[in-house]
Amino acid sequence: MKTDIEIAQSCPLLPITAIGAKLGLTEEQLECYGRYKAKLLPSATAGKPQTGKLILVTAINPTAAGEGKTTTSIGLADSLSALGKKTVLALREPSLGPVFGLKGGATGGGWAQVAPMEGINLHFTGDFHAIGAANNLLAAMVDNHIYQGNALDIQQVTWRRCVDMNDRQLRYILCGLGGKGNGVPREEGFDITVATEVMAVLCLAEDLTDLKARLARMIVGYNGHGQPVTAGDLKAAGAMAALLKDAIRPNLAQSLEGTPAIIHGGPFANIAHGCNSVAATKAALRLGDYVVTEAGFGADLGAEKFLDIKCRRAGLRPDAVVIVATVRALKLHGGADKTQLATEDTAALRRGLPNLLRHIENITQVYGLPAVVALNRFTSDSAAELALVQEACAVYGAEVALSEVWEKGSRGGMELAHGVLRALEQENHFRFAYDAALPIRDKLLALTQRIYGGHNVAYTEEADREINRLTELGFGGLPVCVAKTQYSLSDDPKKLGAPQDFILTVRKVKVSAGAGFIVALTGDILTMPGLPKTPAAEAIDVDENGVISGLF
Amino acid sequence: MKTDIEIAQSCPLLPITAIGAKLGLTEEQLECYGRYKAKLLPSATAGKPQTGKLILVTAINPTAAGEGKTTTSIGLADSLSALGKKTVLALREPSLGPVFGLKGGATGGGWAQVAPMEGINLHFTGDFHAIGAANNLLAAMVDNHIYQGNALDIQQVTWRRCVDMNDRQLRYILCGLGGKGNGVPREEGFDITVATEVMAVLCLAEDLTDLKARLARMIVGYNGHGQPVTAGDLKAAGAMAALLKDAIRPNLAQSLEGTPAIIHGGPFANIAHGCNSVAATKAALRLGDYVVTEAGFGADLGAEKFLDIKCRRAGLRPDAVVIVATVRALKLHGGADKTQLATEDTAALRRGLPNLLRHIENITQVYGLPAVVALNRFTSDSAAELALVQEACAVYGAEVALSEVWEKGSRGGMELAHGVLRALEQENHFRFAYDAALPIRDKLLALTQRIYGGHNVAYTEEADREINRLTELGFGGLPVCVAKTQYSLSDDPKKLGAPQDFILTVRKVKVSAGAGFIVALTGDILTMPGLPKTPAAEAIDVDENGVISGLF
Repeated sequence: MKTDIEIAQSCPLLPITAIGAKLGLTEEQLECYGRYKAKLLPSATAGKPQTGKLILVTAINPTAAGEGKTTTSIGLADSLSALGKKTVLALREPSLGPVFGLKGGATGGGWAQVAPMEGINLHFTGDFHAIGAANNLLAAMVDNHIYQGNALDIQQVTWRRCVDMNDRQLRYILCGLGGKGNGVPREEGFDITVATEVMAVLCLAEDLTDLKARLARMIVGYNGHGQPVTAGDLKAAGAMAALLKDAIRPNLAQSLEGTPAIIHGGPFANIAHGCNSVAATKAALRLGDYVVTEAGFGADLGAEKFLDIKCRRAGLRPDAVVIVATVRALKLHGGADKTQLATEDTAALRRGLPNLLRHIENITQVYGLPAVVALNRFTSDSAAELALVQEACAVYGAEVALSEVWEKGSRGGMELAHGVLRALEQENHFRFAYDAALPIRDKLLALTQRIYGGHNVAYTEEADREINRLTELGFGGLPVCVAKTQYSLSDDPKKLGAPQDFILTVRKVKVSAGAGFIVALTGDILTMPGLPKTPAAEAIDVDENGVISGLF
Repeated sequence: MKTDIEIAQSCPLLPITAIGAKLGLTEEQLECYGRYKAKLLPSATAGKPQTGKLILVTAINPTAAGEGKTTTSIGLADSLSALGKKTVLALREPSLGPVFGLKGGATGGGWAQVAPMEGINLHFTGDFHAIGAANNLLAAMVDNHIYQGNALDIQQVTWRRCVDMNDRQLRYILCGLGGKGNGVPREEGFDITVATEVMAVLCLAEDLTDLKARLARMIVGYNGHGQPVTAGDLKAAGAMAALLKDAIRPNLAQSLEGTPAIIHGGPFANIAHGCNSVAATKAALRLGDYVVTEAGFGADLGAEKFLDIKCRRAGLRPDAVVIVATVRALKLHGGADKTQLATEDTAALRRGLPNLLRHIENITQVYGLPAVVALNRFTSDSAAELALVQEACAVYGAEVALSEVWEKGSRGGMELAHGVLRALEQENHFRFAYDAALPIRDKLLALTQRIYGGHNVAYTEEADREINRLTELGFGGLPVCVAKTQYSLSDDPKKLGAPQDFILTVRKVKVSAGAGFIVALTGDILTMPGLPKTPAAEAIDVDENGVISGLF
């Protein structure tokens, strides 16, 4: 069987100008990066109304079995295109961390991929590098400010450095060592680039002017009087915005079947807000009649933040939501052994189903949106298992569509495409999960009870103090961005299925004043992943002609 | 008076495909990055002979007055183009460190610039970001290897992380803190990206196959038996090469007068080997009849390494050398006050001239190459001062050409262009400054005595031990790459002019087994610069239309 990269390399691509032409764009409205990648220039979308239908693809809580959310998104878009609908994908860019770590790239799989697969997974158009450079320029200016004579309390510097790599060794460091002339000793740590506020700001900014204003508002620490010191105070926002002036422009690529794909921004959903950029989504809504977008990990993380943060900030409203699941993953949620997933096990499936049902309920009842379940079909799924999923979902009013896009491309997504088209006709009562005006603790409680299904929220003393301070400083009315394990609805990765009565523990709280949200770190979640025992990087290679192998 | 960036933005540029066409290249032989930047695909140069004449531009030791080496290189190329010669520039890419620090970008100045100025100075085609990512991927794999169970002696890890930023705070750090699960505590430090071995490897590699082989040879540390552990041992070379597969391709841009400019690679000359890439120089020699290239800082650093490392490794031979000087800078070398440089001071000039003369002597007598002095003219230079420089150089057999390319573009470089054309007719007895087969200490002594004009070399105990170890390991026959202050021929930045009888102190020695040289760090030179009191970044901005200001 062909690997993903072999399939991708076997498909002839259209010149990116031809993809642009499908959207009515001229060559002058694109800035090409090679033959198959381009940035949309402002003229590409200027003055066009946002008339597209917005379809959000989300999923159950991920398991080791994989649920195929990006693959489903791409396949669905290809199926809609095949039905003659003018469809545009709006996806996130991959991070080098997972590419070289465990999870692999983020360009889908099988016959439902976006391309050029290697180009997108490695560097793409340089957006993440620009974000990293802007973040680390500010960091260098913060420490230079301290070194040269200082308004900051060095024990209250909150700005951290970043690298787009899984590098646990940099989580906790002491820097500024080496004596006089080499900085001022202090504790520091690196986050992965996708977890940074600069990434969030880029993804939430409407345009370059908004970007610069948001960058200037970002807090780098506090002075001795407890007052915030911002990137604007350090005169860093202009240079940061200059570094990001191209990065804020959405990127255009294509699926293997030639569906236009706008791929832009890439915060992780467990440690950041998890959606592609507002600029990209709005561009897609201006250029296509149907826009398929995805949010990271399970619906408790990606979809929640897509709806409560991104849609709230950007005035967006999804027209339908697809929830991706597999029988295999649901059996894992029900306690099945991961070596036995090819064996029929309706008992395990029945125990795992509440994970899916909880997400359906959240989408339809809490957020008031039409939902379709996309069941990624495996040959080992038994008829009884498939029927069980369909029956259970029917109770919650959600149609289940079988999807085989990995194996068959658009032909495998017709049932799903028709299901989505029906869902788009349903009534839409979109509302947020919480009122942003509520106090910070009430918002976290609302998410815990209404979305995660938990009982209450506990705070460390540090988190408690910081909530009080941020409230006093006037940040209490911002939405909350919860950093939480993706594996469970709770903050404990071992609690599978649909756990109840748990307490969510908020360990640390901070404000992202530029992004415009309060970050709450729960459980053991870390903003810098580590590499596994055998990193994916070990199998990646390139031959003398520049052909890459081993990416997945 | 217009700033450099205002001049650059006022000049209409040719599409990069039109620049390619000047070199006989088709659109299919270029990979465009926007309208004005491109990478040369392998087909652009395949099978073409290296018939161009190679002109190296170097300089006296730099001073606060600035000597204008890049500006002169660009102006000279424009002048040769204006004379009907098919000329190609081969320059280095700028680093973000100086762009945001003190020195500014590296695209020339006035009417002798390469463009797009902002695009080249910020990100360009992403080469440095790719180099940084490859370096830090290896670093993460090294620490993951230690963390997961280990063949390395953690006190003998030599691989360091990097960032393309002036960030003194990261020079000396402790990483892997935070207890179990967060790595293994050890000392570490960051270098600026331009100082890394990955940068050197990229610049010295002939092609992707050679690049991968060099990456695999890079030493990351030593095991308990004192044996080197390489990037190849950690299975990192393939993934690193995949990250670098586009970065190794030379970039095409243009001067403001439309001269093709190949801009690729950018090691600093004080802390690295200081020349653009072998791939770029060879591409230029295949595409142009006249190739103007430059090496960083003074001739004791950039030109020495260009000749003794790059030319030796790549089988190149320069046909003429231009040495850039200014009356103002020579007066500073002679002890003039930097506030009095507009006042005639032949005494100070006479005291400072030996710096220039020493470089002329090195180029003509040591290396056996024809030399032309390019005297960058300022309105304050008096006739007596100019005459004095000309007389002194005549004694050493070097023609002096006045250059006014900053103010006048190609019209201001005609005298220099004619001087260079005459020099190309002279006999050429190119030879290296030392025989690579000599023991490491003998090579360093040869450089100190023959090039720097010093008396002897002193070694710290650590350097001495490492030289012995590297010799035992079989690395004794590699050329040496000296990291040394750019401000003096000696290792003491305060010793201006042409100091004699000094002792060069080698503080630390290491091998760059992939690049293929021994690095000797002398004096107080640091491989990570710091930001000044007021970083250039504070004045950089971008407006709502994406127009950048404040870059220089």
